[in-house]
Amino acid sequence: MSENTTPALGFDDLLAANDAFAAKFTLGGFDGIAHRGVAVVTCMDSRIDPLGMLGLSPGDAKIFRNPGGRVTAAALEALVLGVHLLNVQRILVVPHTSCAMTKYTETELREIIGEKAGSDASWQGFHVINDQEAALKADVAAVRSHPLIPDTVAVGGFIYDVDSGKLDRRV
Amino acid sequence: MSENTTPALGFDDLLAANDAFAAKFTLGGFDGIAHRGVAVVTCMDSRIDPLGMLGLSPGDAKIFRNPGGRVTAAALEALVLGVHLLNVQRILVVPHTSCAMTKYTETELREIIGEKAGSDASWQGFHVINDQEAALKADVAAVRSHPLIPDTVAVGGFIYDVDSGKLDRRV
Repeated sequence: MSENTTPALGFDDLLAANDAFAAKFTLGGFDGIAHRGVAVVTCMDSRIDPLGMLGLSPGDAKIFRNPGGRVTAAALEALVLGVHLLNVQRILVVPHTSCAMTKYTETELREIIGEKAGSDASWQGFHVINDQEAALKADVAAVRSHPLIPDTVAVGGFIYDVDSGKLDRRV
Repeated sequence: MSENTTPALGFDDLLAANDAFAAKFTLGGFDGIAHRGVAVVTCMDSRIDPLGMLGLSPGDAKIFRNPGGRVTAAALEALVLGVHLLNVQRILVVPHTSCAMTKYTETELREIIGEKAGSDASWQGFHVINDQEAALKADVAAVRSHPLIPDTVAVGGFIYDVDSGKLDRRV
């Protein structure tokens, strides 16, 4: 993480950093194909560096991220597109240790968020994970059994350890 | 992208790279907070390096990614969690130029995918984008008006140019 842990207001610091990024940009004219044939479904967690943890570079992989790294309908849609249009030939589903989505029940999250927001959050859905291992198995099965994802595509389920940087294959 | 553009089968190359990553790992014991107060909603496209394009490092930001970089119900859920539990104080919605989701109609995608998959894909939903600028405005409005995301959170809509590396603020 950056040393500056006091967030700036607005976007000026980020846009200044983008100017510097664009000045050194070398990926222009590149296509949107996954050049290493990889798609990753993982969590939005700030500790996860999806390309870095797999030794990949920009251009190599499609990266789908949501709370918990779950194979939702949107993830399946993304994987179908990846497989048939964007060269995806192997899919990694990667939840992680110490995930916020495994820490609370949905009722608890509604209470915590409602209190912090100052308004009743009972209407808001939160897709908590009761059993991460079982969820991972179900998620990998959802990809493997999808009628529009052929059996030639390799699908694996892994848990990423945020304290060691290690991926552990579970499915 | 990596020089090797012939995808390997299975995961051995990626797991070997992960071993090397873990051997040099320095982020252990770190929390899941967004230390620069940032959340990004962007596309799964392989050309996008969400942290790099904003000058951020792992630990700084929550990154939510789906086809097109759309503010879906899942994205809103993620942002609500980010704002109230994970220090998110500014949100960037970032679709990009040359996005596959802007190139086809849903009917065309069903035909193309069905032909490639060898089975009828008429049942599969594809969230294509007819007007990217209008979609971005609607998506930013969805975040700004969300009852559980306070007005103190900065929300901006940007288009990322995959050929120049530049972010262009639109909303």
